[in-house]
Amino acid sequence: MLILAYILALGLATFALFRAKTLQTWILKRDEGTDKMKRIAKQIQQGAIAFLKTEYKRLAVFVAVVFVIIAVAKGPGLGPKTAIAFVCGALASGLAGWIGMRTATQAAIRTTQAATSGLGEALHIAFASGTVMGLCVVGLGMLGIAIFLLIYGTSHINEVLGFSFGASSIALFARVGGGIFTKAADVGADLVGKVEAGIPEDDPRNPAVIADNVGDNVGDVAGMGADLFESFVGSVIATMLLGWTLGGGDAPGSNGENLVAYPLLLGAIGIAGSFLGTFRVKTNDDSKLHHALFSGLLSASAIVVAGMVVVTLIGDFSYKTMVEGKLVEYGKWGSFAALVVGLFLGVIIGKVTEFYTSEQMKPAQEIAKQSETGSATNIIHGLATGMASVWLPTVLLALGIWCCYSLGGIYGISLAAVGMLSTLGISLGIDAFGPVADNAGGLAEMAGLDPEVRQRTDALDATGNTTAAIGKGFAIGSAALTALALFNSFSTVTKHAHPDFAMNIDNPRVMIGLLIGAMLPFFFSSLAMRAVGRAANSMIEEVRRQFREIKGLLEGDAEPEAAKCVEIATVGSLREMIAPGLLAVLAPLIMGFAFGPEGLGGMLAGALASGVMMALFMANAGGAWDNAKKFIEAGNHGGKGSESHKAAVVGDTVGDPFKDTAGPSLNILIKLMSIVALIFLPLFL
Amino acid sequence: MLILAYILALGLATFALFRAKTLQTWILKRDEGTDKMKRIAKQIQQGAIAFLKTEYKRLAVFVAVVFVIIAVAKGPGLGPKTAIAFVCGALASGLAGWIGMRTATQAAIRTTQAATSGLGEALHIAFASGTVMGLCVVGLGMLGIAIFLLIYGTSHINEVLGFSFGASSIALFARVGGGIFTKAADVGADLVGKVEAGIPEDDPRNPAVIADNVGDNVGDVAGMGADLFESFVGSVIATMLLGWTLGGGDAPGSNGENLVAYPLLLGAIGIAGSFLGTFRVKTNDDSKLHHALFSGLLSASAIVVAGMVVVTLIGDFSYKTMVEGKLVEYGKWGSFAALVVGLFLGVIIGKVTEFYTSEQMKPAQEIAKQSETGSATNIIHGLATGMASVWLPTVLLALGIWCCYSLGGIYGISLAAVGMLSTLGISLGIDAFGPVADNAGGLAEMAGLDPEVRQRTDALDATGNTTAAIGKGFAIGSAALTALALFNSFSTVTKHAHPDFAMNIDNPRVMIGLLIGAMLPFFFSSLAMRAVGRAANSMIEEVRRQFREIKGLLEGDAEPEAAKCVEIATVGSLREMIAPGLLAVLAPLIMGFAFGPEGLGGMLAGALASGVMMALFMANAGGAWDNAKKFIEAGNHGGKGSESHKAAVVGDTVGDPFKDTAGPSLNILIKLMSIVALIFLPLFL
Repeated sequence: MLILAYILALGLATFALFRAKTLQTWILKRDEGTDKMKRIAKQIQQGAIAFLKTEYKRLAVFVAVVFVIIAVAKGPGLGPKTAIAFVCGALASGLAGWIGMRTATQAAIRTTQAATSGLGEALHIAFASGTVMGLCVVGLGMLGIAIFLLIYGTSHINEVLGFSFGASSIALFARVGGGIFTKAADVGADLVGKVEAGIPEDDPRNPAVIADNVGDNVGDVAGMGADLFESFVGSVIATMLLGWTLGGGDAPGSNGENLVAYPLLLGAIGIAGSFLGTFRVKTNDDSKLHHALFSGLLSASAIVVAGMVVVTLIGDFSYKTMVEGKLVEYGKWGSFAALVVGLFLGVIIGKVTEFYTSEQMKPAQEIAKQSETGSATNIIHGLATGMASVWLPTVLLALGIWCCYSLGGIYGISLAAVGMLSTLGISLGIDAFGPVADNAGGLAEMAGLDPEVRQRTDALDATGNTTAAIGKGFAIGSAALTALALFNSFSTVTKHAHPDFAMNIDNPRVMIGLLIGAMLPFFFSSLAMRAVGRAANSMIEEVRRQFREIKGLLEGDAEPEAAKCVEIATVGSLREMIAPGLLAVLAPLIMGFAFGPEGLGGMLAGALASGVMMALFMANAGGAWDNAKKFIEAGNHGGKGSESHKAAVVGDTVGDPFKDTAGPSLNILIKLMSIVALIFLPLFL
Repeated sequence: MLILAYILALGLATFALFRAKTLQTWILKRDEGTDKMKRIAKQIQQGAIAFLKTEYKRLAVFVAVVFVIIAVAKGPGLGPKTAIAFVCGALASGLAGWIGMRTATQAAIRTTQAATSGLGEALHIAFASGTVMGLCVVGLGMLGIAIFLLIYGTSHINEVLGFSFGASSIALFARVGGGIFTKAADVGADLVGKVEAGIPEDDPRNPAVIADNVGDNVGDVAGMGADLFESFVGSVIATMLLGWTLGGGDAPGSNGENLVAYPLLLGAIGIAGSFLGTFRVKTNDDSKLHHALFSGLLSASAIVVAGMVVVTLIGDFSYKTMVEGKLVEYGKWGSFAALVVGLFLGVIIGKVTEFYTSEQMKPAQEIAKQSETGSATNIIHGLATGMASVWLPTVLLALGIWCCYSLGGIYGISLAAVGMLSTLGISLGIDAFGPVADNAGGLAEMAGLDPEVRQRTDALDATGNTTAAIGKGFAIGSAALTALALFNSFSTVTKHAHPDFAMNIDNPRVMIGLLIGAMLPFFFSSLAMRAVGRAANSMIEEVRRQFREIKGLLEGDAEPEAAKCVEIATVGSLREMIAPGLLAVLAPLIMGFAFGPEGLGGMLAGALASGVMMALFMANAGGAWDNAKKFIEAGNHGGKGSESHKAAVVGDTVGDPFKDTAGPSLNILIKLMSIVALIFLPLFL
C-alpha cells in the first residue's frame, strides 16, 4: 500500500502544482483593463510583494536560529534531519503564500476588467485564483511530506515532523503579521479618511487605501493559506506518526506501513477530488453563485468518499491497541467512517458559523436592532452573540470526536482531521475567492469604472463574505482536530517511551498546565489586539501628515505617497508580530522544562480547549458585528448615516481585530504549540 | 483533636453570631437623620426585602424539588440525610444573605447621618455593617458544618456535603438574579434618566433610582455574601472529605479524624482572627482609610498563623498516600505551610486585580487615553486589558497550587483554599463596606444634604471601590481553589470506589468533557448578558412610561412610582435567572450520565480552567472601564462632558454586565458544577 501511496501522492501533488501553473498562466492572459487600473493594481502588487519580502527576510533569521537549535539538540526526532525538514517546511509554506498572493493580486485586476462585460468570466477568474492557491497548498504540502517520508523512512516520521514545524512557524508569523498589517491599514484609512477628512471608502486620494488593499491580500490570502497549509501538513504527519506507533512500527507482522499509507492516500485522493470538483463551479447567474461553489465542494467530497471506499477495500488498515486496560481491535471500515465524519464535520461547523454571522439570520439582525439604543448595547449584544456561538460548534466537535473514536480509536480522530482537510484544494479556493472579489470591487471604485461593474463585483463579494465566514469556522474546526491529532501523537509517543506515562487531570502538574494553557489564548489575543492599536496609531499619524503636508491632495491635484503607508504598516506589523510569535514557541519549552511532559500535556489540552472557544467567540462576534452594520446599511433601522449606523460602525471596528487578527491567530497558536511540544518532547523525558 | 475542633468551631461560631447581633443592635441605635432620609431609606429597604422575599419563594420550589430528588436517590452520599443537609445549607445561605442585606440597608442611612459630623463614625458604621455580614457568613457556615458533622459522623462527610450543595444553589440564583437586577435597574435609570431626560444621577425624580440602590444591595451585598459563604462551606467540607479519605477513614491506626479536624480548627481560628482584626479598623483621617482596613486584615491573618502554629504543634496531621505509584508521607508542617500560602495568595491575587483596574495605575489610564479616539478604541483597549489581566493571577495561582502540592499533597491544595477563606469574617466585612458607603452617598444626594457630607461618603466610597476590586480578585481566586478542592475530592472519592479510575486527558471521554466544560462559561456568560439586556428593556419602558404619564414628575411636583420599578426589576431578574441556573445544575448530570465520571471530570476541569479566565477577563475589563471613566471625570483627557468622556461611558456600560452579572456568576458556576458532580457521583459509577 505504501508504494501505491507514494506514487499517488507524488503524482497527484506534481499534477496539482502543474495545474496551478496552467491556471495561473490562463489568468495572466486575461485582459488587464485601463492604464489607470493597471497603475493602481501595480501599486497593490508592489506593496504586497514588499511586505512579503521584508517579512521573509525577518523570518529567515528566526528559521536559521531554530535550525541550529534543532540540528544540535540530542534525542530521537531531533538533529540535522529534522532541522532540514524544518527549513523545507518553512520554505514550502512561504512559497505557497507567495504564489497565492501574487496570483490573487494579478487576478483582482482581471476580475474587475472581466466584470465590465459579465459575471461568468469574473467568477471564473476569481475562483481560478483561489484554486491556484488551494492547489499550491495541497501540492507543496503533499510533495514535501511524501519526499521526506521516502527519504527518511517510515520509522523516522518524527523527523518528518520538522516539515510541519517549519510550516507552522511561518504560518504563525504570517497570520499575526498579516492580521496586524491589514487592520492597521484599515483603521488608518477609515479613521482619518472617512471620519476625519470625510472622503468615501476606497477613495484614491486616501494614502492608506493602497495599504488597505495590500492588507486584504496579506491577511486574508497569505494568512489563511499559511494557516490551512499548516493544518493540512500537520494533520497528515501526525496521523502517519500515530498510525506507525499504533500499528506496531516495523515489527514483524505489524500493520504500521499501511496505517502510514492511509492518510497519505486520503490526502492524494483529496487532491484529485478537489481538481475534479473545480469543474463544477460555473454560473452566469449571480443568485446561483453560492450554489455553484457549494456544489463544487460537494462533488469533491463525493469523489474522496468514493476513492477511499476503493482504497479501504483493497488494503488492510486495521489495528489493535490497549484501551483502558483491554486489547481492542479497530477494523478498517471504522477508520473509513471516521474520515467521512471528519469530511462533513468541517462543512457543518462552517455552516453554523454562517448562521451566527450572516446578515440574513437572527443573531446579526438582533445586533443591528440593538444598535438603535447606541453603541453600548450593540457591543454588549455582539459580545453575547459571540459567546453564545461557541456552544453548537463545540458540541458538534465533541460528538464528532466521540463518533470517530468509537469508530476508529484515536487513529480515527486523527483521520477525521485529515478527512476534513482532504478537500482543501477546492475549499481554500472557495475561501480565497472572497478577497479577490473584494479587491476587484475596490479597484473598480478607485479606477472610477461604471457602477454596473461594481454591482457585479459586489455580487461576487457578497458570496465571498459568506464563504469566508464558512471558511473561518472550517479553519477553526480543522485546527482543533489537527491540534488534537498532534496531541494524541504526543501522548502516544510519550507512552511508547514510558509505558506508565499518564496525564491525569488530578495530577497537579497536569492541572497547572491546564490553567496556564487556558490562560495563553487570552494573553496572546491581548498582545495581538494591542499590537493592532499601536500599528494603527503610526498609520493614523502618517495619513494625517500627508493630508497636512501634501498640497492639493484632498482636492485631487496631487498623488498620495501610498508606498510610505505600506512601509509603515509593514514595519509596524513585523515589529509587533515578534512578541506573540515567541510566546507561542517558548511557552511549551518553558512548561516542558519546568513541569515535564505531564505539565506540557496539560498545557496543550488547556490551550486547545480555551483557544477553540476564544477563536469561535472572536471570529463570530466580529463577523456578526460586520454583517449587522451591513444589514443597517441595506436600509434597516434607519440605514446609512443614522444613529444606529454609527453605533454599528463602532461594533464593526471592535470586531476587526477580533475576527481578522486575534481570532484566526489562535488557530495557529494551538497547532504550533502542539508541534513544538511534539518535536522537543525528547528533551523533557 | 476532633473534640477540640468541635468545641472551638461551635463555640466560636456561636460567638460570631452573637457578636454580629450586638453589632447590629449597635448600628440600629445610631441616629437615622431627617425624615426625608428615613423615607427614602425605607423605600430602599422595602424594595430589597420585597426582592429577597419573592426570590426566596421561587427558590423554595427549586429546593423542594431537589430535596425530593436527593432524598429518593440511591447510593452512598445520597438519601434523606444529604437532602436534609441540603435544605439547611440553602436556609443558612438565605439567612446570611437576608441578615447581611437588612443590616446594609439599615447601616447606609446611619452612615449618611454620621457623615454629617465626621468621617470616623461613618467608617465605623459602614464597616460594622460589613462585619455583621462577614461574621454571619462564617458563623452560620461553621455552625452548620460542625452540627452536621457531629450528628452524621466523620464517616458520612459525603452526606454533610449536602449542606454545601444547598449553599451553592442559593448562591448561584442569588448572584445571577441579583446581578441581573442591579444592572437592569442601573441601565434603566441611566439611559432614560441621565441620557434621555437629562436629570442628574441619583435624582429623586427618577423612578428607577430606588431600584438602582436596591440593586446595589441585592447584587453586591447579598450576591457577594452568598458567593463567599459557598466558597467557605465548600472548601471546608471538601477538605474534610479529602482528609478523611486520605487519612484512611476510621481504619485502625488511621489519621482520618485529625485530618478532618484540621480544616475545622482553621475555620474556627479564622473566626477568632477576624473578630480580633476588626478592632484594628479605626481612623478619622481619610488618607488612612485603606490602610486601616488592610491592617485589620493583616492582624487577622497573623492571628490565624499563630493559632495554627499552636494547633499544628499539639496534633498529628501527617498522612501517607500513593503518588504516581510511590507511597509518599506528608508531614504536618507541610500542611501548615500550605494553608499559609493560601492565606496570602488570596490577598496577592486581589492586589493584582487592583493594579489592572485602579484609576491610579497604567492599565485604566491607558484606556482613558484611548477614549480620545472614540468608543471603538476604548472598547478594544478595555477588552485587551481584560484579556491581558488573566496572566499574572493565573501564574500566581498555578505556582501557589504547585507550592501547596509540594508541601502538603492534594490535601495541601485544599487546605490552601480553606486558608484563603479563613479570614473571611473580616475580608467580607471590608468588601461589603463598599456598597454601604455607595448607598450612603446616594442617600445624601437624594435627601439633598450638605455637599460636605457627600464628600465624606465619597472618600469612603473610593476606598470601597478599591477594596471591592481586591475582593473580586479574592472571590475568583478562592472560587478556583475551592473548585479545585472539590475536584480533588471528586477524583479521590471515585478512585476510592474504583482504584483503576483515571482521568487521562488523552482519553477521548475526558477530552470531550474538557471541551464542553471550557464552552460552558462562554455560553453561561452569554445567557447572563442577554438576560440583563431583556430585563433592562422592561425597565426602560417603565421609566419612560412614568415620565410620560405622571404629570409634574419631571418638574418635581409629583412622586415617581418607585415600587413599580423595583417590582419590574424583581420579576425580570427572577425570570431570567432560571435558564443559567438550570444550566449549571443540569450540565454535570447530563455529562455524567452520557460520558461517565471521566467525561464529568474532564468537564469540571475544562469549566474550571476557562471559567477562571473568563471571570478574571470580565471582572477586570469591567473594573478598568469603570475607573477609566472616573479618571476622565477627574478632569483628564477633557474631563466630564467631553468626547472622551462619552466614549468612556460606552465602555463603562459594556463593562457593567461583565463585572457585575456574568463575571461574578462564573465563580459560582464552577463551584456548583463541582458540587453537583460530587453529590451525584454514585449515580454515574
